[in-house]
Amino acid sequence: MATPSASVHIRSDQYHLAWDRSLPPVATVSSGSVVEIDALDASGGQLTEDSTVADVTTLDFGRVDQVNGPVAVEGAEPGDTLQVELLDFQPAGWGWTASIPGFGLLADEFPAAALRITQLRDGIGELLPGARIPLAPFCGEIGVAPREEGPHSTIPPDTFGGNMDTKHLTAGARLFLPVYAPGALFSMGDGHAAQGDGEVCGTAIETPMRIVVRLTVRKDLHVTAPEFQTAGPLASATNRGPFYATDGVGPDLLTAARDATRRMIEYLGREHGIAAIDAYLLCSVTVDLKISEVVDAPNWIVTAYCPLGIFG
Amino acid sequence: MATPSASVHIRSDQYHLAWDRSLPPVATVSSGSVVEIDALDASGGQLTEDSTVADVTTLDFGRVDQVNGPVAVEGAEPGDTLQVELLDFQPAGWGWTASIPGFGLLADEFPAAALRITQLRDGIGELLPGARIPLAPFCGEIGVAPREEGPHSTIPPDTFGGNMDTKHLTAGARLFLPVYAPGALFSMGDGHAAQGDGEVCGTAIETPMRIVVRLTVRKDLHVTAPEFQTAGPLASATNRGPFYATDGVGPDLLTAARDATRRMIEYLGREHGIAAIDAYLLCSVTVDLKISEVVDAPNWIVTAYCPLGIFG
Repeated sequence: MATPSASVHIRSDQYHLAWDRSLPPVATVSSGSVVEIDALDASGGQLTEDSTVADVTTLDFGRVDQVNGPVAVEGAEPGDTLQVELLDFQPAGWGWTASIPGFGLLADEFPAAALRITQLRDGIGELLPGARIPLAPFCGEIGVAPREEGPHSTIPPDTFGGNMDTKHLTAGARLFLPVYAPGALFSMGDGHAAQGDGEVCGTAIETPMRIVVRLTVRKDLHVTAPEFQTAGPLASATNRGPFYATDGVGPDLLTAARDATRRMIEYLGREHGIAAIDAYLLCSVTVDLKISEVVDAPNWIVTAYCPLGIFG
Repeated sequence: MATPSASVHIRSDQYHLAWDRSLPPVATVSSGSVVEIDALDASGGQLTEDSTVADVTTLDFGRVDQVNGPVAVEGAEPGDTLQVELLDFQPAGWGWTASIPGFGLLADEFPAAALRITQLRDGIGELLPGARIPLAPFCGEIGVAPREEGPHSTIPPDTFGGNMDTKHLTAGARLFLPVYAPGALFSMGDGHAAQGDGEVCGTAIETPMRIVVRLTVRKDLHVTAPEFQTAGPLASATNRGPFYATDGVGPDLLTAARDATRRMIEYLGREHGIAAIDAYLLCSVTVDLKISEVVDAPNWIVTAYCPLGIFG
């Protein structure tokens, strides 16, 4: 099926750096319109195919996680739902993955900056020699204007969407967002070529992305936070063989998530000879965090799952 | 491939109700032996195919989550790893799913007891009319003797395994547990015919289970908590079509898990006409909790995923 032609195109320089319901729209479309977006990577172009780790240490955080838009959708009113059909994602031919000092699930254990540039070819990104990650492109940032006045950072997600970093929002999925402002004021960005559930080091394979979506106002549906229907089976590019899994066990889910990740890093070192920092980046782009059980008080289990096919 | 014949058989009445390194083994086997276990359901036979909700309210918790064993494995010493190959699981023809007052992720919102008896036929359990759950049998409880002296409840899991309630430990998986006591002292039970990641109401489709495992001492491997390799792709019985997903967004993962589950219950009511208590049970047996992102401070996202194929 061909991707529908867009009725409006949003350029890569039509972005904003905070969610804010007072922002004027860069375009207004009718409900059911197809919108095409050219998005820079999450660094806003500060990192390129030729960057080195030194460029990570000098990143200007004021320019990180820009989102393209906002696009007003005619007829959208507070209380409605904006249906976002994710029609197509075309990543660039390269991406970056970084451990940024002070940012990430194990930030205290990985204080130094790290950077990997990955070529993206034939649906695969070889993050490390011998670790071939199947690509499953999506966008970390998809949102609408917040309910509250004033600027909201684009880093944390919220009930209006934003930086959800949800890997299963691939092409073919339909996302439902609560409308809080007239016109909804939709924006999107933060292209990811591949990511694990959790995004533990704080970055995916970050890439500029060409995006096509269809925006439809739903008067018949009321949601209070993001909901979505996936395109089909989950993680079909990676869920093709066995996984290795490590448990974090204890009374706090965040600590358990940290333990599970730390133990996966240990496994990747022990069995695959991968340096700890590289294993941390690998976890972020391909290892999935699941809540195995959250009822056998006082101890919960978070499990980290690594698809072994990446080494095949 | 035929299941290897067992060198020892553990009867359903050879169980214990606490993990305790001082328990005498009911059998001793050599490393590499195949062990067969007949396990009662998690209620220890208190609930049957003919039970009603009244039987849930009178459950004797002192008899819940018994585990069969312990089996000593010759040569296992503290610091070794016990490799548990999960060879075969044969559930009974029925199972139960209950909301037990005071127990479960949303215990405060579902104070009344509830019970569903499900017939298990042709790999399917129809928990509710029109909700056909593909079976993926495993055991909630798999463990060895703890490091510390004295009795340990079988309800919470720990680094020695125990009540891990991990749905991906199906036949064909290999589990690695740290050995803390001479002989390891392995036990297992708590048959589940199907469960979602999280087991949110506190019970799966609980069923008596015939279990076959191979126990091998690994001197070449040292683990500090459970690790495992899955049999193949994850959830292959359910991961066959689209999922509907609901987000919980906020600074605490447990609260986010509760929100995501609550919103899935709302969705199941809104779109599928399922009563809230039934939807809660349905979530427990088939909805998966994933940590979508845990790095975009201060807000994390837990997402609940329901396989829509169950309604097909």
